[in-house]
This record gives sequence, C-alpha cells and structure tokens, in this order.
Amino acid sequence: MDQAKYVIGIDFGTESGRVLLADVADGREVAAAVHPYANGVIDERLPESGIVLEPDWALQDPNDYLEVFKRAVPEVLRQSGVKPEDVIGVGIDFTSCTMLPTKADGTPLCFLPQYRHRPHAWVKLWKHHAAQPEANKLNQIARELGYTFLDRYGGKISSEWFFPKCWQILDEDPEIYEAADRLIEAADWVVWQLTGVEKRNMCTAGYKAIWSKREGFPPNEFFKALDPRMEHIIDEKMSRVLYPLGAKAGGLTEQAASWTGLKPGTAVAIANVDAHVAVPASTVTEPGRMVIIMGTSNCHMVLGTEERIVPGMCGCVEDGIVPGFFGYEAGQSCVGDHFAWFVENATPAPYVEEARARGMDIHKLLEEKAARLKPGESGLIALDWWNGNRSVLVDVDLTGMLLGATLATRPEEIYRALIEATAYGTRVIIETFESSGVPVNEIVATGGLPDRNKLLMQIYADVTGRSIHIAGTSQGGALGSAMHAAVAAGPEAGGYASIFEASKRMASLRDEVYHPIPEHKRIYDQLYREYLTLHDYFGRGANDVMKRLKELRARVRAGS
Amino acid sequence: MDQAKYVIGIDFGTESGRVLLADVADGREVAAAVHPYANGVIDERLPESGIVLEPDWALQDPNDYLEVFKRAVPEVLRQSGVKPEDVIGVGIDFTSCTMLPTKADGTPLCFLPQYRHRPHAWVKLWKHHAAQPEANKLNQIARELGYTFLDRYGGKISSEWFFPKCWQILDEDPEIYEAADRLIEAADWVVWQLTGVEKRNMCTAGYKAIWSKREGFPPNEFFKALDPRMEHIIDEKMSRVLYPLGAKAGGLTEQAASWTGLKPGTAVAIANVDAHVAVPASTVTEPGRMVIIMGTSNCHMVLGTEERIVPGMCGCVEDGIVPGFFGYEAGQSCVGDHFAWFVENATPAPYVEEARARGMDIHKLLEEKAARLKPGESGLIALDWWNGNRSVLVDVDLTGMLLGATLATRPEEIYRALIEATAYGTRVIIETFESSGVPVNEIVATGGLPDRNKLLMQIYADVTGRSIHIAGTSQGGALGSAMHAAVAAGPEAGGYASIFEASKRMASLRDEVYHPIPEHKRIYDQLYREYLTLHDYFGRGANDVMKRLKELRARVRAGS
Repeated sequence: MDQAKYVIGIDFGTESGRVLLADVADGREVAAAVHPYANGVIDERLPESGIVLEPDWALQDPNDYLEVFKRAVPEVLRQSGVKPEDVIGVGIDFTSCTMLPTKADGTPLCFLPQYRHRPHAWVKLWKHHAAQPEANKLNQIARELGYTFLDRYGGKISSEWFFPKCWQILDEDPEIYEAADRLIEAADWVVWQLTGVEKRNMCTAGYKAIWSKREGFPPNEFFKALDPRMEHIIDEKMSRVLYPLGAKAGGLTEQAASWTGLKPGTAVAIANVDAHVAVPASTVTEPGRMVIIMGTSNCHMVLGTEERIVPGMCGCVEDGIVPGFFGYEAGQSCVGDHFAWFVENATPAPYVEEARARGMDIHKLLEEKAARLKPGESGLIALDWWNGNRSVLVDVDLTGMLLGATLATRPEEIYRALIEATAYGTRVIIETFESSGVPVNEIVATGGLPDRNKLLMQIYADVTGRSIHIAGTSQGGALGSAMHAAVAAGPEAGGYASIFEASKRMASLRDEVYHPIPEHKRIYDQLYREYLTLHDYFGRGANDVMKRLKELRARVRAGS
Repeated sequence: MDQAKYVIGIDFGTESGRVLLADVADGREVAAAVHPYANGVIDERLPESGIVLEPDWALQDPNDYLEVFKRAVPEVLRQSGVKPEDVIGVGIDFTSCTMLPTKADGTPLCFLPQYRHRPHAWVKLWKHHAAQPEANKLNQIARELGYTFLDRYGGKISSEWFFPKCWQILDEDPEIYEAADRLIEAADWVVWQLTGVEKRNMCTAGYKAIWSKREGFPPNEFFKALDPRMEHIIDEKMSRVLYPLGAKAGGLTEQAASWTGLKPGTAVAIANVDAHVAVPASTVTEPGRMVIIMGTSNCHMVLGTEERIVPGMCGCVEDGIVPGFFGYEAGQSCVGDHFAWFVENATPAPYVEEARARGMDIHKLLEEKAARLKPGESGLIALDWWNGNRSVLVDVDLTGMLLGATLATRPEEIYRALIEATAYGTRVIIETFESSGVPVNEIVATGGLPDRNKLLMQIYADVTGRSIHIAGTSQGGALGSAMHAAVAAGPEAGGYASIFEASKRMASLRDEVYHPIPEHKRIYDQLYREYLTLHDYFGRGANDVMKRLKELRARVRAGS
C-alpha cells in the first residue's frame, strides 16, 4: 500500500488566513488552523505612524499574510503528524481585488521606511471603496469611446476592482505610483513569496482587471485616455503573461520552506480567488449547477459553454473558474448582513432576553419563531437592497424597502421577510441567467449560512423552485485551494491531472437536500411576482425615489 | 364682588371617566378626578356569566358610567371645597359611536337578569368592530339605491357607527333587538340618567347616525331595504327630535343629585362627543383654524361656512361642532400607535437599557436621538398606514411601508421617519380640505402627544408649513364639556349665552408656538412630493400589492 499523500490549501480571508491539510485521495480534512491578521482591516489609522485614513478606505498589512505561512502551516503539520515529504502541494485563494504596490523584487512599498506612513503604499483590500471617483471616470470614458468590454461586467467596472484602485494611487499619491515597479493582486504576491517567481493568474485578471483570453487587456490607448501616465501600466507594472488555474507556479523556496516547515520544491499552484475555488470544491465542474456562496453577501457562480451577455452579472471569464468553460459570477451585496443589521437595530429587548434565558443565539431564536410562520402569513414583502443591488440592476444607490406592516406585525415576520427578499433576489439572478441562455437546474450552497439557517435553505428552495444541495465541506475556499494544489503537483507526484478529477475525488455533497415544497412554491410564485413589480418600479427608473432620498441625505450630511 | 361660579365637565373615555371642576370666569381647572371603569373594555368574556365573546367585539358596562357620577363628582367637590350651590351646570362628552339597547324607561337590557348573559344586551363600545358585514351590506345597498348621504361621510359608513351596530343586534340576536324599546348613544343615555329625560344630541346623530339638519335621517324605505324589520327603527327606537349642542337637557333629578352631591335642578347640557367638544376648548369657534387631537390616532376638526364634499373625510355635519358652522372631521387611524408598535416590536435592547440606566421613558430617549437628526438626513420615507388609512383614501386594507433602509440605518431614524409619515398624512388631509374649499391656515394641537413630544410638534409645523399652537388645557374633553355646561346654565345663572363667549373666556392657548423653520420646510416639501407619489401609487390602484398581500395573508391564516 502506497503512503497517503496530502495537500495544503490556504484561504486568505478578510480577517484571517485559514490553512487546511487534506488527504489527496478523498479530500478528507485532516487538520485546520486559523491565523487572525494582527492588523486586521486597517480602516481608521495606519499602524505605527497613526496616520488617519479617509472614510471608505480599507487597507491591510502584507506581513499578516506571511505570518499565516509561518504560524498556521506548521500548526497543521503539528496537529496532523503528517510528514513534510508527504505534502505534495500548496494552493492558495484570496479575497479579490486585493492589491498592492511593490518594488521589482516583490518588496511591498509599505515595508520600506520611506513609504510606511503613506496610505497608498499599503495593500488595498477588496472592500476599499475610496476609488469610486476613478471608477466613475473609467466607466464614462469606456462608454464614450465605445469599449465593449463593459458588456462582460454587467455594464460597469466596480470601484473595488484593479484599475480604479491603481488610478486612485496615481491621482492621490503619484510618487507611490511612480515608485511601484509592480502593481499586483495579493493572491499573486503571496505565491511569489512562496516560489520566488512572479506568475499571475487568469482568474483575477479576468474578473477584476478587464482581461479576457480572446482580447487580452484593453489597449494602451484606453489607459492613456484615462491618464497619459497610465498608458503603459500593463507592460510597466503588470504582465501580459497569465497562467491557468491549477498550473504549477513553481516550487517552495528554501526560505518559504523554512517558514512553513514544508520541503523545498513542494509544488505551489497558481493563485486563485475564494469564491471561484469554492465551485469545484462544491463538486461543480460542469454547466447547469449553480454554486451559491452564502455569507454576509451571496456570490452566484455558474459555468457555461458559450460567452453570453447576461444583464447585470459581475463578470464572465473564459477559464475563469474551471478550464474549458466560461465562468459566470453574479452577486447580492447583502444577505447575512441584513440579518446582522436586523439583530443589532430592530430586535426588541424581550427577544434578546428570551434568547439569553434559553442559552440560544439570537439568530437561532428568530429563525425558530420565523419557521413557525407559513409563506404569505406575515403579509410582508421586502426589497433586499439594504446595501444596494449588485446584480441584475447593478446600482449601489438602491436602498431597502419593507411593505405590508400593520400594528400586528411581529419581529420574526420582518426577519422572515428579509430572508425571503434575498431569496427573491437570487431568483431574479437565476432567471436572468436562464433567459440569457445560461441554464441553472440545481443549486449547491456553501459558505457560512447553509450550516446555520435551515429555514433560509428551505425558503431558497421554495422560492427558486430548485433543489438545493449542500457542499460537504464548510471550507470551500481552503479545500478548493488544496484541490488546485493536487492538480499543480500532478499525477506523477500523487496528485491529479485535472481539476475535474480532483473535484470528483476530493469534493462531496452532504446527504441533506432541500427540495421545493409545492404548496410553498405556489405562494412564493405569487409573492415573487409582487417582488418583481416592486423591483422594476423602484429599480428601473419608474420611480427613482431611492436615489433622490440618498442624494438628499448626502446633501444634508455634507451641509452639516 | 359676586361669588365665583363653577361648572363640571365629565369626559367619558375608553377606560375611565374624568371629571373636571372649572371656574366659569376663566376656565381655571380647580379640581379633577378620574374613575376607572371596573369592567373596562369587555372584549373576552361577559362579566358574571363568563360568556365568551367573538373576536372584534368590544363592550362596556353602563353601570361603570353611573359609578363615575357617584365617585368622581363628589371627589372634585371634596378636593375643591366648592359648595354645590356654586356649581351652575354639568356637561358631558363621550366616545362615539358607543351605543346600547334599553327599555322605554332607560333601563339597559344588560341590567335585566333575563338578558345579562346575552352579549348584544350590553353597550357596544366605539371600537367594537364585529359589525363589518352589516357595514358592508349597508354601503352596498346605499350605493345601489343611489343615496347621496354617503358623500357626507367620505363615501362609506364605518362599521363603528350606529346603524351597523343596530343591524348586528338584529342579525344575531333578534330577541334583543325586539326587546330594545330604545337604541341610544351612551352619551345621550348618561344625560337621561342625570335629568330623567331622553333628549338626544345633534352631534352623534350627524356624525354616526346619518342624520343631517337639512335632510334628517335616511327615509324608512332605506331601512326597509336593509331589513324589513328595521323599517321603522327611527320612530320606534330612536327619535327625530334632536337638540343642539349647548342646549339645556334638563335639571339634575333628586336621585342624580344624591349620586353626585350636587343640587337638584342643576342645569345639564345636551350630550357631546369627546373630539368635537375639544374644538371650542382649544379656542376654535371659527373657520380656518384646524384642531388636531393627537393621541393613539389623530382626529382633525375644522369649521366651514358651507357644505363641501371633501374626499375621504369622516363626516361633515351642520352645527355638529359649533352652531352656525359646518363641522368637518377627518382622521388618521394610527399615530401614537405607530410609536407604541415601534417601541414594542423594533426597539433594540441597548436602547431599552440606556433608557433604564438614565431613568428615561423609552419614547423620550428615541425622541432625543431622533431630534439630533436633520430633515432628510436618514434617507428614509414611510407610509403611515400600519392601521390602514382612514382619510383621504378611506381604505382599511392599506398597510405600512418603509423605504430607504441601508445597513447604516439606526432605530431613531426609523422612529423619526414614522413621525414624519404621520405629518405627511396630516398634510394630505389639510391639502384635501383646502382644495375642496375649506381653508386651514393654522393648527391648534391638543390631546396626549403635544405634551409628550416636542419633536413631533416641530415636524408637523415644518411638514404642513403651518404654525401650531397648543391648547392651554390638556383636558380638552372635560373642559369642553364644562364650557357647554356653562352655556346650558345660561347667563342668568352666571354662565354664558353661547359657546363663542364661553370659548373666549374659558379656553386658552399656551405661549409656546411651533413655527415652520423655512429650511426644514424646503426639504420636507421635497420629501412630501415623494410621499404623495408613493401614497397615490400604493393607495389609488396603480399597484394594489398591499391589498393582495393582506388577502393572501387572510387566506393562509384561514387555511391553517
């Protein structure tokens, strides 16, 4: 009998890095460790200098990523007792677009004393929202000049993405822009730190940096039109050579081996993105089955055989999720966040006391009470736009709405209406995919919510009319990265030849399946029609009251 | 110097009776006493027999009213030291339509052992809502037969009013209907108990029993069309002779004198209604100044010189408030009730704890926090229909809506949005009056809310663009009744010749006035336009989602 082989997947999240050691044969999760970032999300003051950041900023410290290698990787080896020589590969996934400026050798500018007090020298986290002016200008110029790439991104490049962030650096601190030999996704940067070579991945390039396999990046003239100093940004500070997911970036350097306790030369996979890597980790490597990563927000991923323009999706990238397919991504900006908002701002004291007395989480108590209601029983309907609409309307200025309240309306009815609203939002996305020629027959859910809220899963099945499976792993990011590590190592080292094979062997579904209940479905069909009417009335220009109120609010606040 | 003279006003409310002894010269409130009804609102079981009531029932025990005479009147005499011979008159006001069946001598059927266990033998309180089927049938028949009296009541007779309640007795317990020699407003019944004579007032007849000075009651054929057994209801069980407000009904009987400790023969005024009597008590005896009685709901009263059809008002009655004018009434079904709902169902635990720690009422805390916000700052707008819309749309099936919520929305912002929504609702009523030819130049507020919530008063001034004065008395009902007592006593006894004179001498305004703040007004004008658009979209048939949700809710609940 051969000695068992293992792979390590590392999932770099918003607050911490999570390391998983998995058995290559069946994906069994042998050991896991989490290392919280010492500096977390930097959104008030820079470390050490104490420089105050403007609103909407969100930075990170790249040293925190290295600490994940140094602390959590040795920890899983220790926990598991697995020998370094039996670990055949390492894969990583990252939040995106999370990017930083570095010197030519990869040194982050924020590590250099002369730049350490300059906010633009640090990592811009995905949720850094201060590049909105640059995003607006970029979209306007692209539209005016007739660039069709916008179609691949639902008509709009987000302020969260790569070029608005680069441009903000140039706009606000041109010296940092000048000093940056490289502008790079943190995903690619950590792979560089492990392997000593800068090899960039297709996924973040495709979804966040306007790259496509057929057209490459936008032409230099486009960047020149943004700002003449950006004309050669691709060739000067980025790279036109991009590597497919699952490819081997290189082997661990001696230094990285010493950080991690792994063997030098251990295969390291090309970097990937958390949501995308969760797709094969949820057993999905073919069209027709949508993966929804459910947490504070929802991310909807589905594969297609052709390039389709789907209104309001976040992106469509060939080979962007699984090689050989177009990977489609859509999203809802606010799902678990709704419920957290509700608990913090609208759950009355007696409920909190009841939860405390019964030793329950308050969400569990609300779920229990909401689960006693039948569909349609509350008389409420909501629009799930507390944080705008990311897909299909792509409009951050839309806001939340609740309708149907009476003096008899109870908190659990509102809580349930919020869950239902997010389910209607998901159904809008599914139906938009389908009517654009991208079929969605079944759903696989993963992320934090499916574990925590069975009521929510049943409501999603009832509202969408589709069966919902639950991914076997609750660590879709780390397991997906481990699977890519096995592909990077290849069959010769005991890994796999493709992500298809890796997914078949290492990914699984739970036995539990949520099937639509026909009588619920019938009522939700009726409620969904009401939702759609309100969705279109408030979202498509018939009554722009939400935008006018938001504008007025901004004006009043600015005047204060 | 003449000996000072006094009058007594008695305000029969929903839970208790309140007695006020006032100085005739200036309305000074010398003594007051409250007597809570022993049986309160009877909405679950009949006293003694324990007979279970159906949902939507609300009864009272007429003996509780007599106890007010026996307990609280002697109490104000005792407190004040005023001698009975210096009390020149007694006036009462009552909730309405609150009605009961009696024998020819005034004995309530529920006092008789053979009827005591029969729910229909008891007093039907104003908020008894179980006569909705009869109200629906009545409205349908009146429309079909082309009766124009509906126009005087905003197009609809409410289930709370006199004839639906009578008809319910006939429908459900014809023996009680048969046994009832008289069907009478409790207001008129208590005056009968004081004076020994049955003299009915014009106010309740006009507002609740479809009577008008020019047309009288609907013809017998109308009642026959409802039910042949009702054909002669007016002549058999009611009276076509109705007395003007401020007239003398009679003098106290020996028995009533012994209950109250007052002198036999003391003048007793014709009965009146709580909201209506509050108008002269708020200094208003002329057109152009609207009185708003603000409490759990809002009641809007204004005088006009001509009969106008105002869409959706509750009623227009000649001499119904003050002689010589058409008295207009409109209302909002839910004002303070919104805030009570919010406190009970949507105020988070930390706010409750903060209020407790600071020894504050939770409403006060919410007001304090909401007062720190500027108009427009929350980005929220609401429709104040948590309990339907009573005026202008007259639709109980409309429901509440909140729009503009984000993850940053705080509880005090929602609380303020609810206050603002009720102010927009009041502005709709005012503008409807004005566009129908009934001017409203100024507002006088009275009731419980003006005392408790200064923020609300300022918002109403800012939203309506009208100055708001506050009535000097916080007992508009009891003082108004005392004023009518002074008129009933007449100048020869030391009282007044008219309610105009009584109002001038006995009613007052506080020094505090809320003037519209121009920059607030400007922003609220903009928000009001948004409110109107939503009001019409959801309230006038463009999108009947509220009704459909309510229907679905009823269907789902019935199926359970």
